[in-house]
Amino acid sequence: MHLAELSRRSGVSVPSIKFYLREGLVPAGAPVSARKAEYSDQHVRRLRLVRAMLTIGKMSVAQVRDVLAVADDPAFTRHERLGIAQYMLPPHVEAPAEDAEERAAWDEMRALIRDELRALGWRFQDMAPALDLLTQSVVTLRDLGYKASVEHLRGYAKAIHPMAETEYATIGEYEQIEEAIEATVAYTVLVEPVLLALRRLAHEDVSSRLHYGDGDDAADDDGGEHTA
Amino acid sequence: MHLAELSRRSGVSVPSIKFYLREGLVPAGAPVSARKAEYSDQHVRRLRLVRAMLTIGKMSVAQVRDVLAVADDPAFTRHERLGIAQYMLPPHVEAPAEDAEERAAWDEMRALIRDELRALGWRFQDMAPALDLLTQSVVTLRDLGYKASVEHLRGYAKAIHPMAETEYATIGEYEQIEEAIEATVAYTVLVEPVLLALRRLAHEDVSSRLHYGDGDDAADDDGGEHTA
Repeated sequence: MHLAELSRRSGVSVPSIKFYLREGLVPAGAPVSARKAEYSDQHVRRLRLVRAMLTIGKMSVAQVRDVLAVADDPAFTRHERLGIAQYMLPPHVEAPAEDAEERAAWDEMRALIRDELRALGWRFQDMAPALDLLTQSVVTLRDLGYKASVEHLRGYAKAIHPMAETEYATIGEYEQIEEAIEATVAYTVLVEPVLLALRRLAHEDVSSRLHYGDGDDAADDDGGEHTA
Repeated sequence: MHLAELSRRSGVSVPSIKFYLREGLVPAGAPVSARKAEYSDQHVRRLRLVRAMLTIGKMSVAQVRDVLAVADDPAFTRHERLGIAQYMLPPHVEAPAEDAEERAAWDEMRALIRDELRALGWRFQDMAPALDLLTQSVVTLRDLGYKASVEHLRGYAKAIHPMAETEYATIGEYEQIEEAIEATVAYTVLVEPVLLALRRLAHEDVSSRLHYGDGDDAADDDGGEHTA
């Protein structure tokens, strides 16, 4: 297919395709004349993946290039290819670098959290960026004077693992690595707002019951009361 | 107490306090001389809340002002005061406004999601911003060709509601409205990364078992393999 059809089938605009070609995120097509090239289904898959990483995953062009380098390298297993894609997804947080005492407290908490999850039998890399995210949340809650501990995390971890098992079944269905990575990015990023939105609605429900009672009448009356 | 002690006890710098006073986010102290004012414990609580909304909650000054106006208005119940604070927290997504067909599909999906959650007995306002967040996720996954439905949401909703019940018990402990709002902001915002980080680690665990098997040996071997 030519550029126009590639654009139509991938849903990526011609200027964007040209940008991705220039940046080396998509391999060049087979030249058919001085100004025309022929593209394949593999280009369609690659374009969809690149677009998903840049727009849904909010990765940088350099991060997309890193993920693609691993995706194309036969030295990596499928697990590693999917893992690298997940590790590149924001948010990334940094351990405190300036204050030695602060850094020691951070490292200690990170190790506690890691060991707590490993004690549940979870298998993950020591360098997993998600461990830093957990550390930051617990450290910040504590600094603000709130209760936060690795024991609290255990409850959340047990509630979340079954979700991950169900979700992962879907990603396993994609044989092509580009499609599996794209699905990893899409499900990771797009289901995260689902969790936080449902939690906020559940809080509203719990608060409503606490303040107005559990009855059906309260539920009916609740309609317009919340308006600012 | 004077400004210096207010700064020390609230953990907010003197220039920041002066900015919040100028913006009307913190009430003026009682004047003791032409250039000095006396501040109370209420100022300490208010400063902590303002700082939490601006820095952890990433709210705008205008949004903080709105939350505080409700917090101080006796016409609102405690449930409403806490709810307004939660509604102001990002992320906020907008329904598509330009394309009429797209908008109709959005409104239809939003109503389906709302009714699905109400069928579980959940009580929340029709205008809850979290409903838009859910709608955007489901619509985007569908547009990308992935499976996403209100039935999927039901499973997540049932897993998340018990977490919200446990969490809300803590917020109920704060009698002062400023402290309760601060706790709402802190727990809402700071526990959200916990959920997404644990889900990412759980994915890594599930993927590791799928690709390398369930055995203890695999768990031990897994150490350095994931390095890029």
